[in-house]
Amino acid sequence: MGRAMGLAGLLAGLFFVSAVLVSTSLRHGAPRSQPEPAEWEPASGAVPAEDSLWPLPQRLRTSRRQLQLAPDRFQLVHGAGSSAGPACGLLEDAFRRYYEYVFGRPGRRTRGRRQLGALARPELLRLQVVIGFQDPGCRGFPHLFSSEAYHLTITEPVAVLKADEVWGALRGLETFSQLVYEDDYGSFLVNESEIDDFPRFAHRGILLDTSRHYLPLKSILTNLDAMAFNKFNVLHWHIVDDQSFPYQSIYFPELSDKGAYSYNHIYTPTDVRLVIEYARLRGIRVIPEFDTPGHTQSWGKGQKDLLTPCYSGEQPTGSFGPVNPILNTTYDFMTKFFKEISSVFPDAYIHLGGDEVNFDCWKSNPEVKEFMKKQGFGIDYAKLESYYIQKVLDIVSSYNKGYIVWQEVFDNKAELKPDTVVQVWMENNYAHELSSVTAAGFTAILAAPWYLDYISYGQDWKKYYSVEPLNFPGSEKQKKLLIGGEACLWGEFVDATNLTPRLWPRASAVGERLWSSRNVTNLQDAYKRLTNHRCRMLRRGIAAEPVFVGYCAHEARGQ
Amino acid sequence: MGRAMGLAGLLAGLFFVSAVLVSTSLRHGAPRSQPEPAEWEPASGAVPAEDSLWPLPQRLRTSRRQLQLAPDRFQLVHGAGSSAGPACGLLEDAFRRYYEYVFGRPGRRTRGRRQLGALARPELLRLQVVIGFQDPGCRGFPHLFSSEAYHLTITEPVAVLKADEVWGALRGLETFSQLVYEDDYGSFLVNESEIDDFPRFAHRGILLDTSRHYLPLKSILTNLDAMAFNKFNVLHWHIVDDQSFPYQSIYFPELSDKGAYSYNHIYTPTDVRLVIEYARLRGIRVIPEFDTPGHTQSWGKGQKDLLTPCYSGEQPTGSFGPVNPILNTTYDFMTKFFKEISSVFPDAYIHLGGDEVNFDCWKSNPEVKEFMKKQGFGIDYAKLESYYIQKVLDIVSSYNKGYIVWQEVFDNKAELKPDTVVQVWMENNYAHELSSVTAAGFTAILAAPWYLDYISYGQDWKKYYSVEPLNFPGSEKQKKLLIGGEACLWGEFVDATNLTPRLWPRASAVGERLWSSRNVTNLQDAYKRLTNHRCRMLRRGIAAEPVFVGYCAHEARGQ
Repeated sequence: MGRAMGLAGLLAGLFFVSAVLVSTSLRHGAPRSQPEPAEWEPASGAVPAEDSLWPLPQRLRTSRRQLQLAPDRFQLVHGAGSSAGPACGLLEDAFRRYYEYVFGRPGRRTRGRRQLGALARPELLRLQVVIGFQDPGCRGFPHLFSSEAYHLTITEPVAVLKADEVWGALRGLETFSQLVYEDDYGSFLVNESEIDDFPRFAHRGILLDTSRHYLPLKSILTNLDAMAFNKFNVLHWHIVDDQSFPYQSIYFPELSDKGAYSYNHIYTPTDVRLVIEYARLRGIRVIPEFDTPGHTQSWGKGQKDLLTPCYSGEQPTGSFGPVNPILNTTYDFMTKFFKEISSVFPDAYIHLGGDEVNFDCWKSNPEVKEFMKKQGFGIDYAKLESYYIQKVLDIVSSYNKGYIVWQEVFDNKAELKPDTVVQVWMENNYAHELSSVTAAGFTAILAAPWYLDYISYGQDWKKYYSVEPLNFPGSEKQKKLLIGGEACLWGEFVDATNLTPRLWPRASAVGERLWSSRNVTNLQDAYKRLTNHRCRMLRRGIAAEPVFVGYCAHEARGQ
Repeated sequence: MGRAMGLAGLLAGLFFVSAVLVSTSLRHGAPRSQPEPAEWEPASGAVPAEDSLWPLPQRLRTSRRQLQLAPDRFQLVHGAGSSAGPACGLLEDAFRRYYEYVFGRPGRRTRGRRQLGALARPELLRLQVVIGFQDPGCRGFPHLFSSEAYHLTITEPVAVLKADEVWGALRGLETFSQLVYEDDYGSFLVNESEIDDFPRFAHRGILLDTSRHYLPLKSILTNLDAMAFNKFNVLHWHIVDDQSFPYQSIYFPELSDKGAYSYNHIYTPTDVRLVIEYARLRGIRVIPEFDTPGHTQSWGKGQKDLLTPCYSGEQPTGSFGPVNPILNTTYDFMTKFFKEISSVFPDAYIHLGGDEVNFDCWKSNPEVKEFMKKQGFGIDYAKLESYYIQKVLDIVSSYNKGYIVWQEVFDNKAELKPDTVVQVWMENNYAHELSSVTAAGFTAILAAPWYLDYISYGQDWKKYYSVEPLNFPGSEKQKKLLIGGEACLWGEFVDATNLTPRLWPRASAVGERLWSSRNVTNLQDAYKRLTNHRCRMLRRGIAAEPVFVGYCAHEARGQ
């Protein structure tokens, strides 16, 4: 591009006040069509921004007209008429964060500053963020019904990001940051664009398991960053399980004193608060899972008589089974324990587990057998399980919390409140299960096809990407009851050494499936965007593994 | 343990001058037998050293008599009669390194220092290292016939490590460092022991691929550390391939200028020297692979006319196939190129590749077809491949280098020098291939069952561990021709983000198979030692992934 052209561009920039979106390429899954000629040719080598958008917005119109951003001048600001202002710490924090994602850290920033080319293009001076609802939500927590929709208009000299609540603004800031790119000379450019965006599903989660292996706080926070980059909005924190109990309870400190792997494998109340706040600032809900009555071996270490003693004939074996459902002390404990959990975790939902209960120990215990007889359960231990679950559900309800349960709880016919969320995890015939759950009028989230701990050779992201969640038999009304899904990274083989590269960008495939339009399914287009998105994650400090052969301009530094 | 007992121990220590190895547990694959009572009970909670040895030494006698090491006093020194002294930089460097592996960095070290218990046990004051051969090898490079045997005697007050050459001393230092453990009070202890050790196979390699993805220098060096911890002695550096040419050639700088992914995806001559020296200091050979005639797309970018132009009918398609075997210029280039390689890489062997040559392009090219006719090859393109390989082998031979080739070169009946090493990589029926290669009198290395880039869910280390390399039909003489094996981590899906956790500790399983005695095969015993070994690698800064559920006292810090 010659100097004369640059001057022409400058003039065009000065007089081209009202932005016209010239070429349109609606990107709903179709292979990208060639954009029409525009005012400026893009610099060679630079990755066009729309080749790196992830997840793809619902509606995107982009022009080839490039605006330049000057790191020393560009500002993220509250727009006129916004209900949020400088007192909105959440947005202020997000402005600072996204400024850095766009321009890099100060050390790098000087690169693109004083360029001859800087005169050649019209300049984007500001991004104005306008929150429409009277309560912008700055101090609140995101919830299932939060609005994450946003409208982003990038025209010279000011871009405008409109959202009902701060949660939509966060999503729009992420998109804006993905639209800015550097040309070969280090100039920061953005094409004039208009974006109208909202999530397809309201619940888009990542399950992390801190029981099979403890995850240091830093790993959790790093992955909250990555979740925000992929527009996930739920951290399903499978915090305790058989193997260890890292959650430090205020009422029952013995649970982690004796049930954690060690004294330094614990999440203190401060740690938990930090995770919740770090997530909130990124529009992410934290839903803790305290799975009972199975998966509770570690609970038994610090809470006497909580678990069922197993028998061999007449004799206790010394080992223990699931939570003991026949003792009043069990429910006294659960009442107090979930009172704490309900107050520590602000989300409206608690995940109560209820999966994979092994009946062998219950069957071996004479007192349990006696209880079964009294209750008229016969030998149907699923009924005993439901009896237990029912009581726990009632306890949690009494604290005005909703609950999520694994599919067995539904399968075993526990009496569930209408707002119960059933999480479908069994791979086998999960469409049928979705059908049953929603036919019964319950809300469902899908995890079955997205167990990311099951690794295999090659590009398995395509498998995750190709899932269509609504492909199950059912009415329109039923389909509406599927509110989202989760990518689950169970922790048997995962800890801080391999968590991040194992999760990203494989989970990104799930992220786009849950956010973008149903017809965004083109694998070739996704591959191109995903590889660029992965490089962007690397630049932002996420050790996302490679999708396939190739390289990033800024590689991970190596360990 | 009470104070009185401690005093008794002190007295025992003072008078128990000549060390007696009381209890013996020869560990050849059998489940560990209960050790007999010894002078001191081990402190509870501490991991007995023999539960973390990896790979298991050939002969190990260990007593329950514990010696204490005082970080401020303990010294690694050259012993009387050693041919190596303070001028041996390699050993001096190793002493410093292993001192730190044993005691941790200075910050941590103070912990175990002034303890009451420190008076209670006899003290190990020094480890004396004695090199027997007249030339200790301090300035040399390890080679296929280097001696890695060592004899280690740990008795009060001085331990002695004897080896023929420095290479054995390095292996013995690693073992010594694995024998020292910390008790619950932070005291450093080692049991009186005697170890006689040597590798079962001479070639124990790790293949890293820096073409599919560039690996930053730091990743390579970190993995050389990990290799030393697992007694690997060959880095098979698959440095270039179709995808990129990161090797910066002195004679042909255009190869990387045009063939590397980018200007900062290059190994400069300084980088290469650094890798070689870092490896040498750890007793590791660096064998570079320059794979031809296939796998060479990236070579073509910087070297005109090197690759075969492909045709569609009468017309060149503009794409290129394998190296063009019919031009004299090809051999002029190879002569000069391998002259450089032969001088840059000190190892006696160069890996020349020769795998997976696709004949389609050769078949399409009229000049190649003409050449085939002239040479009387008919339509047997394997003959053309052998013709090419033959010439390259002769070139490399003329520089007094041996060569390693992938199995196809043997299968295609190229005329090979008797000292050629054939690397067997095809999974299908590899025992049969080992049989054929060794029956023809060639030396073989086995890679087929150890392609670690093929990941799967669960503890796949067991699969790698359960391979018995000598399980192929053949005479004793043939068995001797199998000189070792390699764990291969091809780079399609691996870069600095996931290399280390993907390789370790899975490659450790291969490491023990290639070092330890044939009958060390007990999976339960291996599991216990491997999990402890993995935690030790973490402590030493290697982000080795977990073997299964559990924890380490010192976890990875998270990214």
